[in-house]
Formats: sequence, C-alpha cells, structure tokens
Amino acid sequence: MNDDRATSTRSETPEAILHGGDLHAVSGRYPDAPQPWIDLSTGINAVPYPVPEIPPSAWQRLPAKSEERILLTAAAARYRVASRDTIVAAPGTQALLQSLPRLRPRSTVAVLAPTYEEHALCWRRCGHQVHLVDDADALAHADIAVVVNPNNPTGRLLPRDVLVRLAAAQRRRDGLLIVDEAFVDLYPANASLAADLPPATIVLRSFGKVYGLAGVRLGFAISSADIATRLRGELGPWAVSGPALAVGTAALADDAWLAQTGARLARDGQRIEALLENAGCAVIGITPLFRLIASPIAAGIADRLACHGIHVRRFPAQPTWLRFGLPSHEGDWERLAQALGSSS
Amino acid sequence: MNDDRATSTRSETPEAILHGGDLHAVSGRYPDAPQPWIDLSTGINAVPYPVPEIPPSAWQRLPAKSEERILLTAAAARYRVASRDTIVAAPGTQALLQSLPRLRPRSTVAVLAPTYEEHALCWRRCGHQVHLVDDADALAHADIAVVVNPNNPTGRLLPRDVLVRLAAAQRRRDGLLIVDEAFVDLYPANASLAADLPPATIVLRSFGKVYGLAGVRLGFAISSADIATRLRGELGPWAVSGPALAVGTAALADDAWLAQTGARLARDGQRIEALLENAGCAVIGITPLFRLIASPIAAGIADRLACHGIHVRRFPAQPTWLRFGLPSHEGDWERLAQALGSSS
Repeated sequence: MNDDRATSTRSETPEAILHGGDLHAVSGRYPDAPQPWIDLSTGINAVPYPVPEIPPSAWQRLPAKSEERILLTAAAARYRVASRDTIVAAPGTQALLQSLPRLRPRSTVAVLAPTYEEHALCWRRCGHQVHLVDDADALAHADIAVVVNPNNPTGRLLPRDVLVRLAAAQRRRDGLLIVDEAFVDLYPANASLAADLPPATIVLRSFGKVYGLAGVRLGFAISSADIATRLRGELGPWAVSGPALAVGTAALADDAWLAQTGARLARDGQRIEALLENAGCAVIGITPLFRLIASPIAAGIADRLACHGIHVRRFPAQPTWLRFGLPSHEGDWERLAQALGSSS
Repeated sequence: MNDDRATSTRSETPEAILHGGDLHAVSGRYPDAPQPWIDLSTGINAVPYPVPEIPPSAWQRLPAKSEERILLTAAAARYRVASRDTIVAAPGTQALLQSLPRLRPRSTVAVLAPTYEEHALCWRRCGHQVHLVDDADALAHADIAVVVNPNNPTGRLLPRDVLVRLAAAQRRRDGLLIVDEAFVDLYPANASLAADLPPATIVLRSFGKVYGLAGVRLGFAISSADIATRLRGELGPWAVSGPALAVGTAALADDAWLAQTGARLARDGQRIEALLENAGCAVIGITPLFRLIASPIAAGIADRLACHGIHVRRFPAQPTWLRFGLPSHEGDWERLAQALGSSS
C-alpha cells in the first residue's frame, strides 16, 4: 500500500488513525534532535530507482492512451501477467483502495488483521460491514476477503495454496478475494498471485515501495478483464500522470536494477537485524523493506531514537511494536547504531 | 476540465465518446501527413509554464500534508479564496468529476449543454438522472445544476448575477450548483465565483490548461468546508503526486508569468481569428485558449488540415463545428496559414 498507518484490531474512526511517513509532524515535537532526520518510519525503499529524464510532453500533454498501454505492457512483463487488459494503472494503490468498495453493493468484508488499516477504513467509508479477523479460515465467511501478503507490518506470508483455496471459496459464494501485494516484489515469483490469477481475485501491486518513488503515485490492480473495465470507469480517464507513466515504464523494465536492489536489501536486512538484536529488540516481522520488533519498552526506544533525529513507526494499538525501515547511507547506519546503544 | 471530448445534446454511451488530445490515434489515419504533427485539438496552453527543478524528495517520499498545505496556500492566493480549508486539490479536475456524483444520493442533474461531456457522463455512471438543457433558467429545476463557465467549446460566459441567483435557488431546494471554471483563468477576476463563493456552490479550477501542463494532473474544487472534507474523503490520502505539488506551488505563485501569458494569448487569439476569418470560417466561440468556428464544410476543413499534419477538434454531434487551439511556434503558424489556404 501507499503508506503506513496504524494497524489495529480495534474499530477506529478515521480521525484516530496515525499517519506514517509524515516527518514534518514528528520533527516538530523534537526540536532539539540532530538534523537531518533519518526517516525509517515507512516501508519505502530509501535507495530509489534513478528518475530518468522526463520528456517535456509528459508534463505538457494529457497522458495518451498509447503511453498508458506501454506502461501496462511493462507492468505485464514485470508481474508476469499474460494480458495487459487485466491490469489497471492508478495514481497510487490508495486510489484503488478508494475504488474497490464501489464495485459491490453493501457487503460483509473480512480483513485479516492486524494489517495496513486503509483497507478496513475504505470499505467502512462506503457503508460495508467490516470485520477484522485474525485467522485466515475466518475470511471465507465474508463476501469480500482482504489479505495483505506479505503482511504489513508482521511480514506474515500466506502460502499460495491457502489463498487459492480461499479464492475458490469466494468464487462459489460470488464473493471476492483481494490480495494486497505491496511488499511482494523481492519474494520468489510464486509468492505473488498475479501471474496465475485465481478466479474472483484482485491483486494489488504498488510501484512506489520497492522502487523508492512513493511521491510518483502509481499502483496497479490485476483482476478479471470485467473488473478491470469497471475499475477503469471508477478512476476515469488520465488517472495516471505523464511523469508517472514515464518513470514507471522505465523502472518496471529494468530487471538489473531490481536484482541489485534485492541483493542490497538482503544484506542491509541482516545488518539491521543484528543491530536490533544487539540492542535487545526481538525481531518478530520481516520483509525485505522493513523489520518489526516487539519490546516492552518500545515507547522508550522510539522516544530515544527521536531524540537522536531518527523516526520509526509506532503502532498505537500494539504499543510494544516498532517498525524499522532500512537506512540508505553509511552515516545513517552509524547514527542508528549509536542511538540504539549498540555498535554497528 | 482536463480534456476535450465530444459535446452533445444527445444521450450517448461512454463508448461513443470521442477523445481529444490523443494525437497518436489521428496521426495513424493520416500516415502521409508531414511530421511533426501540430496538435491544436485541445484547449491546453501550448507554451507551458517552465517546469522547475523537482527536488528528489518529491519523487521519493509520500506527499506530505505540509507540502499539500503549501500548495493550497498558493492556490488560495491565486484564486482569491479566503481559507485554504475550502480548497481541495485533486490529481486532475477529472478526479473531482468522478467524485462529485458520490456526494449525493440519486438526484436529478441538469447540465447546460452543449458542453464538456464528462460532466453528464460521470453523473450518469453513478445512477443519477441527467438532463441536458440549453437554457440557464431550466437548470433550477434539478437537484444538481452544472455549468461550464466560460463554456467549452462555445465560450459562452454566464454573468455573475445569473449564477448567484441560480446558487440561491439551489440552496433553497437543498441542491447544488457546480461551476466548472476550467477556462476562466485569464478573464477579469469577477468572472470567477471562487473569490466570493455563493452558498450551495462548488467551483472547479483546472491547473493544466492555462499553465500548459495537463500531464501533471492537478485540479481544485472550491466549496464549503463541509463539502471539502467529504471530497477529501472520496479522494483519499496522497491523492496529488509530489511533482504535481512542487510544480503547482511554483506556477500558482508566479503572477508575472500569468500576466505575460495573458498578453501573448490575447495577441495570438487575434492572429488566429484573422486566419480563420480569411479562410471563410465564422468564429462563433472564443476563450483565451481556443476559437470555435462553424462552417458547412467543417469536415472537409478538418480533413485538409489533417493532410497537412494539423489536428483540430471535431464534434460528432455538431458536425459544422471545429475548435482550434493556438499554435506556439512561428513555423506552426505558417503551416496553419498554408493549410487553411490563406496568408498569415
């Protein structure tokens, strides 16, 4: 997904949701912290894909259908999807989350929780009855089953056969399975359902996280051609900006960059895990782009890090949890090690 | 609005709508036309605001609330709106058109036609009952009254007092007046309702047209604070991209550029009018960004221009109409003059 909000198994009003990634808000509360801040509060790759030269026409002209087709062709190759007609490009996966609840009349929705909270929020906003469940088996009792896989922030990865069975059950009841694969990019290919999409399934893929370009606003839905047509109608024409079409097309076709990024993140993930374990933090959730820790003194750790100008992700409903994105520069690694009170 | 589709007083299916500005489609039908094509088919300023250096963080990070506030402050100053809380930024005015029909339960909607066709299309898509009317007085008989002012493509400008009376009537019936001011930027300030918003009114302002940056995807709604909150909920967080926030903030604050642009477009508008009248075309609609002509041989003129690699806007429902955007370069002016068979 396109950001990081509090995860919760409680029902919350939208106003109660903590936003992540908005460094301006937290830095104001720690005016004496060293500058610049190190923002580890998101699951966005801190070493971004290098933005190519954007042709003037991408800024000036309405995004052409032909340019969108080129982007969708690159996305189809990248996600191993047979037909680009089953892929919908949106200005961020969040725009798809806003649209999905409009595909169905008021339904029961089960969200496997705790997870990224915008799913439940968007379905509730549109009047659907949302249940947060903590067991994948319970998902099959609702019209709409929502799974973030791998999960944010726990890193839990449901096996493919579990999801395929769930999709079959949803198809029998004329329901839908929605699998948000925002963090799946660097997993083995069969971790994603996109390439061999089960029936009654919608897969969401985020561009900004692994490519480190969340500001571009680009995300994809992979579904049946029928659902894709309806989603395009919800989004309307020219939904994706010209610069996003240009950047996305270049990045999605660059297999070498992605492979290098995967290798770097694997090394850096081990490095931050060692730092955290040395500091007495138990790592309980892993994806290539973040680590989740549990500690009885999580609030104190977050405060200490903030005093050192380092922003990590807290979860009001799970006060013992902290999520750490990966630093990008050697100096940032050293500041993190010092702040955690361990050696790098 | 963010593009140009066929205007019509007929009811049409979405599939039947002609898209404008998509040069790729028309150039394929005229393979022998000289290159490069001159695209006069849109109402987008062909001399764009110069895109400033985009800071890396605008691409990389989720757009911050603080950055959006800065954009809205610039928009409030530009549109002379007292409070930025009453302005909503969207990824193109089209995204607002998609959202407006969700503010109300199924309603009757009157659209002053012929006009930009996406208004009627979006309300119909959401199940509202849409009537196209050709008299402003008839607007008051519907729950939702929609006016494009100045109108695209006819250039008709409803006086402020007519709109204020209409807004008062809509307020009495708990209705809404929607005024799409996509082309109002270079008119005298009181042509816009934004600065002194009547009750029950939503004003739409487009960024991409006058600034010549339609690919950026940026548009605004100005309304009551209550409606603004609901529109923000429909759009969801991080709706506007980081580059759009950066470009929009710079451009909206640049009064000198806008004044120069207005002066240039005034000169160029007179120049194209002379060309068209010399060629026997009656100019029946004027805005600073385009001229609308009527001619019994409009189809033949469009075909001749296409053979010369010049794309203008046709209107299937008004076959005698053609709309001309303004050329940007001297060479383009000369090609247009030659193709029209008159001297420049």
